[in-house]
Amino acid sequence: MKTVSRSNAIYSYDPDCKPAAHVKIKERVLLKMADAFGGQIRKETDAMTDLDWSRINGATGPVYIQNAEPKDTLVVEILDIKTEDKGTIVTIPQSGILGENRFSPTAKTVEIVDSYFHFKNGIKIKTNPMIGTIGVTPEKGQTPTGTLGRHGGNMDVKEVTKGAKLYFPVFVEGALFAAGDMHAIQADGELCVSAIETAGQAILRFDLIKHKSPEWPVIETKKHFAVLACGQTLDEAAKHAAQAAVNALVREYDWTFEEAYMFASVAVDLKINQVVDPKKGVRAVIPKSYVDLESFLT
Amino acid sequence: MKTVSRSNAIYSYDPDCKPAAHVKIKERVLLKMADAFGGQIRKETDAMTDLDWSRINGATGPVYIQNAEPKDTLVVEILDIKTEDKGTIVTIPQSGILGENRFSPTAKTVEIVDSYFHFKNGIKIKTNPMIGTIGVTPEKGQTPTGTLGRHGGNMDVKEVTKGAKLYFPVFVEGALFAAGDMHAIQADGELCVSAIETAGQAILRFDLIKHKSPEWPVIETKKHFAVLACGQTLDEAAKHAAQAAVNALVREYDWTFEEAYMFASVAVDLKINQVVDPKKGVRAVIPKSYVDLESFLT
Repeated sequence: MKTVSRSNAIYSYDPDCKPAAHVKIKERVLLKMADAFGGQIRKETDAMTDLDWSRINGATGPVYIQNAEPKDTLVVEILDIKTEDKGTIVTIPQSGILGENRFSPTAKTVEIVDSYFHFKNGIKIKTNPMIGTIGVTPEKGQTPTGTLGRHGGNMDVKEVTKGAKLYFPVFVEGALFAAGDMHAIQADGELCVSAIETAGQAILRFDLIKHKSPEWPVIETKKHFAVLACGQTLDEAAKHAAQAAVNALVREYDWTFEEAYMFASVAVDLKINQVVDPKKGVRAVIPKSYVDLESFLT
Repeated sequence: MKTVSRSNAIYSYDPDCKPAAHVKIKERVLLKMADAFGGQIRKETDAMTDLDWSRINGATGPVYIQNAEPKDTLVVEILDIKTEDKGTIVTIPQSGILGENRFSPTAKTVEIVDSYFHFKNGIKIKTNPMIGTIGVTPEKGQTPTGTLGRHGGNMDVKEVTKGAKLYFPVFVEGALFAAGDMHAIQADGELCVSAIETAGQAILRFDLIKHKSPEWPVIETKKHFAVLACGQTLDEAAKHAAQAAVNALVREYDWTFEEAYMFASVAVDLKINQVVDPKKGVRAVIPKSYVDLESFLT
């Protein structure tokens, strides 16, 4: 199996970046990822103030996918996902949704044993290993891997885990995929700005759907499809997600806008991904019984 | 069992309003509710433009709960809930999260049979009967039952269904509780501004917790507590919900703010209630295994 080591860290999705690996569709690839701090926090006393911020939120890649061309859809299947046995979570003053409170920079490290870690007061939490940053390279410019957009990026969606499939619009030849920022677990919101950050690895399989692509990244789980939208505010992100969901329903059934709008009001859940990255993320969740993948692609 | 008929419709929570009924704690009460349109839409061709808007979003009540005093908590247990067999959903131009699209005023009526209704194209949807508007009377002024706030009101939370318990801060003597706006089903977001609106009834049981109350209404389900916050924007609503959740965790465990903030980031889900009422609603969901009701009350 082709392996991409974590030494291939990029900090921007960049169309001019030399690929770390070339892969064929349906080939399995092992992607190794550093944690979001680039391994700079080893213990709780490591001063948060000494961090080299240029090494934060890296992603491993880019991976060039053979035959991927602009306006295609890159399909990314997460076959397996595994974190290391150590995780770190931090608070950063002025950061997160409650940044207006007074608090200190702190770091907490946890040991993960058999998919559980101890938080405090005897509370054991089961992990749900996921990938926070995952996406393709936008057409132009350098797009920091800490941001998010129609190309994916730092979406922090807790459903990006083993068994999920993601669908990205392709903007450049080869798609130039990269992923990183693994979390042992994160709740919807990721409200303090950090999850249980951890290094780890994932086995991915890529595929292509030629000549059509989704407006926003779409995730497929066992039970549903979800449009992964973002915006400067949660309200803007929710609007983008709702619009894409209603458009998909119109295409699926040839319904009027009004019919799709009504149906979405009773059958499509708007859910918060995260409220703390440069843009906020909302997903519109549609049960698979109501819609096919095809309807998300144009 | 004491019954409050739907003819007791109010359109504002008002401390000067004469109670429709007086009840004792632990007494079961049958509350009958009109639909959100006050029964004005009987068929799909009833012109949406002819609606008497002063009869929209009513609630049945107010119910005076014996011994309820300001700074107490009113506990409302939903023992049963039943909708009529007919429901209506509408689109209203310029309304809902996609109000910027061009579309017409339309109404769709559905027949509910054995907890299912047919939407279109053979799609059958299972109902989840819930109460959209539920709350107590604020201290001063007339608060339209179509709005929401710390007193509850038009919160449109899909978890307000059979088996749920709600906890409201009491602001006036007797609490002056009222509820209405039943939905046969609504998704998180209620994105077109309307759910499957229906008349119906609920069996409620009230209780009191004396001399302490929550900052925002709290709902208890089998598995979790959720703080029901709102704001002018989803971002503001999310911030209020997150703050109340973190405060509860600090009280529960005597943790530092930083510890509670971290824990919330991995264990508290921020979820969207609705994005279309005068204020937006977000709930912060904490599993019951992590927190007692007590920690939400001050």
